[in-house]
Amino acid sequence: MRMKHLFSGLCALFCFNSLQAQYNQPYSPVVHNDGSVTFYLHAPQAKKVEVAGQFQAGSTLLTRNADGMWSATVKPLEADIYPYHFVIDGIKVPDSGNPLYFPNENFKSSLLEIPNSEALYTVNSVPHGKVHYCTYYSSILQQHRTMVIYTPAEYETSPQKKYPVFYLISGTTDTEETWYKAGRAHTILDNLIARKQAEPMIVVMPYGYMNNGTPGPSTPEATGMYQTFSREMTECIMPYVEKNFRTFNDRHHRAIAGFSRGGGQSMFTALTHPDKFGWLGSYSAYLTPQVMDKFFPDLKATSSQLHMLWMCVGTSDFLYKDVISNQQYFDKKGIKYQLVTRKGNHTWMHARYCLTETCKQLFKRK
Amino acid sequence: MRMKHLFSGLCALFCFNSLQAQYNQPYSPVVHNDGSVTFYLHAPQAKKVEVAGQFQAGSTLLTRNADGMWSATVKPLEADIYPYHFVIDGIKVPDSGNPLYFPNENFKSSLLEIPNSEALYTVNSVPHGKVHYCTYYSSILQQHRTMVIYTPAEYETSPQKKYPVFYLISGTTDTEETWYKAGRAHTILDNLIARKQAEPMIVVMPYGYMNNGTPGPSTPEATGMYQTFSREMTECIMPYVEKNFRTFNDRHHRAIAGFSRGGGQSMFTALTHPDKFGWLGSYSAYLTPQVMDKFFPDLKATSSQLHMLWMCVGTSDFLYKDVISNQQYFDKKGIKYQLVTRKGNHTWMHARYCLTETCKQLFKRK
Repeated sequence: MRMKHLFSGLCALFCFNSLQAQYNQPYSPVVHNDGSVTFYLHAPQAKKVEVAGQFQAGSTLLTRNADGMWSATVKPLEADIYPYHFVIDGIKVPDSGNPLYFPNENFKSSLLEIPNSEALYTVNSVPHGKVHYCTYYSSILQQHRTMVIYTPAEYETSPQKKYPVFYLISGTTDTEETWYKAGRAHTILDNLIARKQAEPMIVVMPYGYMNNGTPGPSTPEATGMYQTFSREMTECIMPYVEKNFRTFNDRHHRAIAGFSRGGGQSMFTALTHPDKFGWLGSYSAYLTPQVMDKFFPDLKATSSQLHMLWMCVGTSDFLYKDVISNQQYFDKKGIKYQLVTRKGNHTWMHARYCLTETCKQLFKRK
Repeated sequence: MRMKHLFSGLCALFCFNSLQAQYNQPYSPVVHNDGSVTFYLHAPQAKKVEVAGQFQAGSTLLTRNADGMWSATVKPLEADIYPYHFVIDGIKVPDSGNPLYFPNENFKSSLLEIPNSEALYTVNSVPHGKVHYCTYYSSILQQHRTMVIYTPAEYETSPQKKYPVFYLISGTTDTEETWYKAGRAHTILDNLIARKQAEPMIVVMPYGYMNNGTPGPSTPEATGMYQTFSREMTECIMPYVEKNFRTFNDRHHRAIAGFSRGGGQSMFTALTHPDKFGWLGSYSAYLTPQVMDKFFPDLKATSSQLHMLWMCVGTSDFLYKDVISNQQYFDKKGIKYQLVTRKGNHTWMHARYCLTETCKQLFKRK
């Protein structure tokens, strides 16, 4: 424990103080002024310690000092929030020095936040919205579920006003908390709204798992998953939100977008219900020609009703080719869309970029 | 991954389905009908795997099958929620099979929930309150902080009504999320209110760390920590809550209680501000005679204004003797209090019991 306090002290001397870092003893990781980062782990009995994270390819070896404290410094990183973990003698573990974590059904990574006063994920002195954890009963899935809902700061101070709603869906193995705690949707929205770059809106973050395993987007089983999600969204989630919050209840004021599995779910749901959704975003996701042929024979007419059909994928994403195939299908059918391709992978750094870009467009009708 | 699906299937066949267990693939732990529990871990290269948790003293060895899947079954457990973790070759790790986790500044345990339809931590078909994550600026600590706030179900449907407020503080290394996610304060309140055993109330769960290290309750440094907390509570947290929620703003409608460090903070704050708090609970916590002599010379008069001064400690708690000394001090001074001693340790199972018992008393004036 002595070592811990020593490193805590070093951190206080040398590292950035993020406004977000309210927590005690974040003795690892330590972010230096140049953006380089030192990771610490006290493990006197370990033989080999590595750090692996989405800020690098592969992993970095830590070296041990006489007290059994392992450390490694990685080169300056671009301002962002990166999931990472340690590997101790082949065993994957989160960083116990770090209060910040990535909510997931399975392994919960730690989160490395590079402090940056300009970054949209930074809690600034702007009006702050609230994040509500709400319990609802799903008659489709026959269980209680939790959804996470953001309301903008002015929601409280303008009690007569109604708001548009953005349904924001996370991916496979994510939970309803992932867009909040790893995506920082609330802080991005607070900052965009304060900068007048986004309309004040409600953001609804449900849990995307449909209790039927984890079918890949190209499998026949995915169809059942999409159909269940579409019903869950329109028959359970939307009615709950529209009963419990002050919402505009028409397609012009409803958006849906998601990352990975959530992108496919969003696309399927919006195209199934063009009367209900006017804005659609698909982040690192696609639908197969088979699904589109079967379910959306009038795709051109259906999609033409959308105010936005926005897609984005990183060129290193394992789904990049599939998203391009989706684009080609759209081209063949004469569908209007926006597609952004950019350097990047299937990561939450990319997901946050996508969220930011769509929020800048949403609910602004020409 | 094949093994995982197999065990997921076994779980679906044999284990309880908790209403709370909305998540995909909880392949470990598996709770059997008799309340015994099997833990699974896939670690083909591990040499020794143990499970340690607050449901037992010490740890239990897991045994390995030919596929590298380790497992161990522990004897039937009393219905409760237990923090636990694995130890793989001496390294402490959470259970990646389990979506449920214990929010903490440092190591985040997994949570084993024994399903039980009668338990107050079970999400039942009763009206559900909401849990709000709120960002505020602390002028005392000069940083943005998050607090977690529960509003009862009827808060939304009775928009003219005001509510009493219960400030509920967690302990050392806990965060503002611990009373929510490990304490299940929201579900306990939902159920107690539905059973008419508790008054509808707002519950405010702030982060208790005061940016001055972690002084033990008997150290001189604790005094500064208590004083800072008392100011943070009355100058930052309460004004935020009373501005943002519909609250009764008098001592008869304000309670404060906490577990461990939070219990000491609560006692110090309520006794410093008897004009502001009418109800006080101290769970597994105490103040030293030195602190009480110095700060509360008129303790009998001060404490006599309280509608409730409730203390509770487990007989195996490492602070048991200190709480008894606190009791003796109160006796010597002629202070009226309630003290419950019961089988138990310094655990969150005990903390949930304390919460339940105080909620049954709060805001019911004779």
